[in-house]
Amino acid sequence: MRWIRFTAGERTGYGLVEGDRVAETISGPFTAFADATLPDRTGRTYSLSAIKVEVPFLPRTFYAAGLNYVGHIHEMAAASGIAPSIPSKPDMGYRAINALVADGQPVVIPRDATRVQYEGELAVVIGRRAKHLSEADALGCVLGYTIGNDVSERAWQASDRTFWRCKNTDTFKPMGPFIETDADLDAMVTTVRLNGAVRTSFRTAEMLFGVRRFISTMTRYLTLHPGDVIWMGTDGASPDLRPGDVVEVEISGVGTLRNPFVAEDSP
Amino acid sequence: MRWIRFTAGERTGYGLVEGDRVAETISGPFTAFADATLPDRTGRTYSLSAIKVEVPFLPRTFYAAGLNYVGHIHEMAAASGIAPSIPSKPDMGYRAINALVADGQPVVIPRDATRVQYEGELAVVIGRRAKHLSEADALGCVLGYTIGNDVSERAWQASDRTFWRCKNTDTFKPMGPFIETDADLDAMVTTVRLNGAVRTSFRTAEMLFGVRRFISTMTRYLTLHPGDVIWMGTDGASPDLRPGDVVEVEISGVGTLRNPFVAEDSP
Repeated sequence: MRWIRFTAGERTGYGLVEGDRVAETISGPFTAFADATLPDRTGRTYSLSAIKVEVPFLPRTFYAAGLNYVGHIHEMAAASGIAPSIPSKPDMGYRAINALVADGQPVVIPRDATRVQYEGELAVVIGRRAKHLSEADALGCVLGYTIGNDVSERAWQASDRTFWRCKNTDTFKPMGPFIETDADLDAMVTTVRLNGAVRTSFRTAEMLFGVRRFISTMTRYLTLHPGDVIWMGTDGASPDLRPGDVVEVEISGVGTLRNPFVAEDSP
Repeated sequence: MRWIRFTAGERTGYGLVEGDRVAETISGPFTAFADATLPDRTGRTYSLSAIKVEVPFLPRTFYAAGLNYVGHIHEMAAASGIAPSIPSKPDMGYRAINALVADGQPVVIPRDATRVQYEGELAVVIGRRAKHLSEADALGCVLGYTIGNDVSERAWQASDRTFWRCKNTDTFKPMGPFIETDADLDAMVTTVRLNGAVRTSFRTAEMLFGVRRFISTMTRYLTLHPGDVIWMGTDGASPDLRPGDVVEVEISGVGTLRNPFVAEDSP
């Protein structure tokens, strides 16, 4: 199933994407997953082209793997003129709710930003309370997958003590467009296009530490809850983006997240 | 006003603490603040000693100032055998929702933890959407104050790439007991007691960067939302805590947050 959160007229709620239509539901993906029930359709349907896509959910805790692909670690180190340091274990970071925007919404480049870049990432949506999961059982708490663009300002990333500004400025966290419940994690390919041209492509599962390993390690110490999300990191590098650029992150079997970049002053 | 979130019998909701009684309300502090209305009392009251205190709210984004008192920065540097590095500007960190526990609830020391310490902190509760606030206007978005204990495992803090485990293991973030709306930020004193004995006491406002400065800096880049919280950092140092210890963080005019520490295996 492909869940969408959307607005049609005055109504905002969940629905199922079926071809070019959206079938509205009473409750959303977390209820269906928790209760192991079929979606409760209202009977109303909408054209996908006529609705406004919303962020698929506001995460309860917004986790991010950070450095998790060897190529990206080398690219980032080379850009900083330092030796690459490959993490020896999966340590999570965090991102912030304020920065989320939906598919199609603009990423606003602040006036004093100089080096804004994309990072196309798989986002793992947690649907079930989980603690002390083995790697073999880890995917049992996963409701589905969506896509994130972990937009980053590299000058601030280098100058600040934390990632609060470089990663979490308003609009820097596009997420969506759907939650896909039936995707095959191990078969996914992530492709990033800039203004229509492919710039980065990598096998999504070729992570330093995979989804199973992260979930198993995390739940040794913490409880995952329905509505938590884990962004899994990116591979490759990005050019510095400019107003007018359009970035698409496609993950095969999950969807395509497309966002234009605009200047802070533009209307 | 002193808002409490509490459970009495099967009911969980908000109320006002008035002496040793709690006056139940229909809606909570965020509604009253947004609408600038008086609390809508149900007419039911409870003895404060007969109710269960809950975490006052689940933050939307959970910010933490980290290093924000000169004494603590020197203590932490000395403990690590390094020169103290005083931040030159207010860079925020993040904490995680999974780790929150209420006043009175146990902090569970994991079996493999060796150096668990307290950090008594003022917590600033945001009540109004805010962007581009000046320092002079910054406190206008503040609904009130509560108290946090930023429990930290120092060995993991030194060994891990991020704070996910050292700061955000389940139960490591006690917060409460109340939200106090009428406290005087500049007059507060933070006192930390271990097993009844005062171990740390500092003027809460003697921060490297105060609440006004943090809010003004943050809202240059991000929107604060109702339900966001900012923990403001701590002064002094903590001994390594052991099962059986009880830590109280008192902030004058705000309240006292009291939590026992227990071993992971204890019943």
